Amino acid sequence: MTHLNSKEVDRKLSEAFDIAARLYRERGFQRRLGFGKRPALISVDLANAWTRPGNPFTCDQEKMDNEIIPAMQRLLEACRTHGHPVIHVTTAFEIVDENATFTDMGIWNAKIPARVLDLSKPELWAIDSRIAPRQGEYTLMKKRASAFHGTELAGILRANNIDTILVTGVTACCCVRQTICDGLADGFRPIAVREAIGDRIPGAVAWNLFDIDAKFGDVCSTDECVTYLEAVGRNA
Amino acid sequence: MTHLNSKEVDRKLSEAFDIAARLYRERGFQRRLGFGKRPALISVDLANAWTRPGNPFTCDQEKMDNEIIPAMQRLLEACRTHGHPVIHVTTAFEIVDENATFTDMGIWNAKIPARVLDLSKPELWAIDSRIAPRQGEYTLMKKRASAFHGTELAGILRANNIDTILVTGVTACCCVRQTICDGLADGFRPIAVREAIGDRIPGAVAWNLFDIDAKFGDVCSTDECVTYLEAVGRNA
Amino acid sequence: MTHLNSKEVDRKLSEAFDIAARLYRERGFQRRLGFGKRPALISVDLANAWTRPGNPFTCDQEKMDNEIIPAMQRLLEACRTHGHPVIHVTTAFEIVDENATFTDMGIWNAKIPARVLDLSKPELWAIDSRIAPRQGEYTLMKKRASAFHGTELAGILRANNIDTILVTGVTACCCVRQTICDGLADGFRPIAVREAIGDRIPGAVAWNLFDIDAKFGDVCSTDECVTYLEAVGRNA
Amino acid sequence: MTHLNSKEVDRKLSEAFDIAARLYRERGFQRRLGFGKRPALISVDLANAWTRPGNPFTCDQEKMDNEIIPAMQRLLEACRTHGHPVIHVTTAFEIVDENATFTDMGIWNAKIPARVLDLSKPELWAIDSRIAPRQGEYTLMKKRASAFHGTELAGILRANNIDTILVTGVTACCCVRQTICDGLADGFRPIAVREAIGDRIPGAVAWNLFDIDAKFGDVCSTDECVTYLEAVGRNA
Repeated sequence: MTHLNSKEVDRKLSEAFDIAARLYRERGFQRRLGFGKRPALISVDLANAWTRPGNPFTCDQEKMDNEIIPAMQRLLEACRTHGHPVIHVTTAFEIVDENATFTDMGIWNAKIPARVLDLSKPELWAIDSRIAPRQGEYTLMKKRASAFHGTELAGILRANNIDTILVTGVTACCCVRQTICDGLADGFRPIAVREAIGDRIPGAVAWNLFDIDAKFGDVCSTDECVTYLEAVGRNA
Repeated sequence: MTHLNSKEVDRKLSEAFDIAARLYRERGFQRRLGFGKRPALISVDLANAWTRPGNPFTCDQEKMDNEIIPAMQRLLEACRTHGHPVIHVTTAFEIVDENATFTDMGIWNAKIPARVLDLSKPELWAIDSRIAPRQGEYTLMKKRASAFHGTELAGILRANNIDTILVTGVTACCCVRQTICDGLADGFRPIAVREAIGDRIPGAVAWNLFDIDAKFGDVCSTDECVTYLEAVGRNA
Repeated sequence: MTHLNSKEVDRKLSEAFDIAARLYRERGFQRRLGFGKRPALISVDLANAWTRPGNPFTCDQEKMDNEIIPAMQRLLEACRTHGHPVIHVTTAFEIVDENATFTDMGIWNAKIPARVLDLSKPELWAIDSRIAPRQGEYTLMKKRASAFHGTELAGILRANNIDTILVTGVTACCCVRQTICDGLADGFRPIAVREAIGDRIPGAVAWNLFDIDAKFGDVCSTDECVTYLEAVGRNA
Repeated sequence: MTHLNSKEVDRKLSEAFDIAARLYRERGFQRRLGFGKRPALISVDLANAWTRPGNPFTCDQEKMDNEIIPAMQRLLEACRTHGHPVIHVTTAFEIVDENATFTDMGIWNAKIPARVLDLSKPELWAIDSRIAPRQGEYTLMKKRASAFHGTELAGILRANNIDTILVTGVTACCCVRQTICDGLADGFRPIAVREAIGDRIPGAVAWNLFDIDAKFGDVCSTDECVTYLEAVGRNA
């Protein structure tokens, strides 16, 4: 049902987007960043608490199984074949006891059910087995929305000469968007891979990708991204 | 016309929000952070390029003149009367020459018309005279969307014992939202002041406030915020 | 032998410090920050690779066993008795394979033997058992010198209303100093606990504590810090 | 007199450095990072309050006039001839009123005479006229020791494909060292230009360059750096 509503909502949103896109283009927003020379794939929170049923963080399952995971499998294959770095991002907290007087959840637990993401339960924050990390791929544990905020990701990418980040995962309105916004600010070209980004509420993917494409990163199809990963791999 | 469309779009969005809000509440999202003990007002990009007509960055003028500026004037009065810090944020760039080989605009100029925000033209980035900074208020020059990213704002607020940030300004989908998301991650309680936040495209205020309220900060009315600023001032 | 040389070097340095301290005092540097209202203990890299013999990162063992560990035990007892947060910091890397084309070690492995700190060998980066973390204490895994850079530590401390950080550990010239410098910039009052800070080369503790005390944080004795932790605990 | 003492202190320190260097080399520290492919020159706090007499921040004048400024002039010429970016860094504060209840000086004014660096007195924080910025060079205003902490510098450098930073200026124990440490953590190769780095107390240049060379960046001569800037310019 959520999925059906999502399609309806997206139809209603498209009119708003058309009006906005006209204004953006007249004003010089919504331009193309283009791809750079050295990409990395950053896959955000495609861990069991988000990809599998039964958790407060569970996302739209139809989209997950039919679009996001298959798109990720294609992207991973292209990265692995052509030697592009892969960063798997996940989220968990060390001190989730309700009576703790100090916690690494920060203010966030007062807003969302962060307490569920218990570091001592790796089955929750482990990357989904359908896209499991391989040797040489980096798994980044974060504590807030962005994969860059409060992590060494920007420094690591710069030290490895990465200039372009292909961002996938969930959720569009939270960790994916924040990763893209910070990635741009930190000096990278963010590419949002359209089919590989999900959420848990109708409309959120649509309006967040619209905002991203207008101001923060290029929204591209998985096809375009795979073609790019193959091409830049051959040139490197 | 933009304003009319904005109202229509908001009506269409409200159905999507109702469905989403039900899911969020069942799952434990969209909770109240509440106000803290020591607030600061952070007013984002209410500078001439955004508040006045004729610039690519100009925002919805009807909302600006009739809602945002009056709300800001009430908030400023409450802060000034009760001794709460005010931070006015603006944005400009030093190297905007099209032929420059090095620029502080970063990747952003490839996406939005950042070049327009020329540091050598203070009439563009000066705070709107209707809400002009007073002695003892801080004017922060930023280069990216967030008032926290790549600035000392978090450290300054912590050193001044601030725990709560009331965020206003433009645009909802960019600098306001990023400031709120980073504020939360940096350990502050973000409050989005509903009437004092604008954008330049229809729908963007609505969907961004919805996302913010679900995951990053409390959306409160100007009335609630003024009452809080007065109350916490008396207790301090 | 290293320890003996260290004492000699310190004697030679003291003359330089006397001249410098005179200039600093005349100019208004080297003032006291003083203690704040809510402290946390931040213990840096007191993990086996640094505290025990046989590793390239091993520090001065006589100082470790006779001064640092006993001082830490006193500080921990005061924190645990009075409910002050404790953060144990350690360092390790995920991708240390010499042939890896991507690594989280960044540029650092080109300068120091970072590769030794292998995340898959927890016996190296586990906190020394003599000061083992207890339930409710936070263990922070960092990748660079500072406990703040590229971590959520500042946000976590702010969200918990901490305003003062008591910093201990190794090494004085690297992770301890960087943690103190960043702590100040991030809005906290840094206190360097004299007897609880070590290094692996003669002189480094002396000249780094001198620089810290002049510009970044107060150098205080363990006695002063324990007295403070007890006093602020009773008032809280 | 300060200068004479500085030479004596350096002699006394050299013995300590010899012992330490032996240990560092045995353990695999103090290695060479080497130069990268795209350098930028980062000149820290060579502004009048530091370079000219009569200010609490004034540095060793003999070294300033006879070594640092001449070295900077050679480096600037090489950068300007070969098109390498130059970043001039300076420091000032907006709210320095002793009675202000809110200030951008943070905790720092409790330790050092930050209040002197008044943003409303540009003669203090303006870059020394002997090395005045040219069109297309970037002047960065910072508020803390590091040129990276709380600024967009890392993002700006990454967006401009810079991988190597040549760092000069004052003081060795504070802003220069912090800039180098953060530069490394943020993914850049830091080079400390030996003759172009100063301080205001005897010994501080020596012990800080020793620590830097051991763990954070390569200490190189102005000659080596000029040769590199010319060579990489020709290859670009």
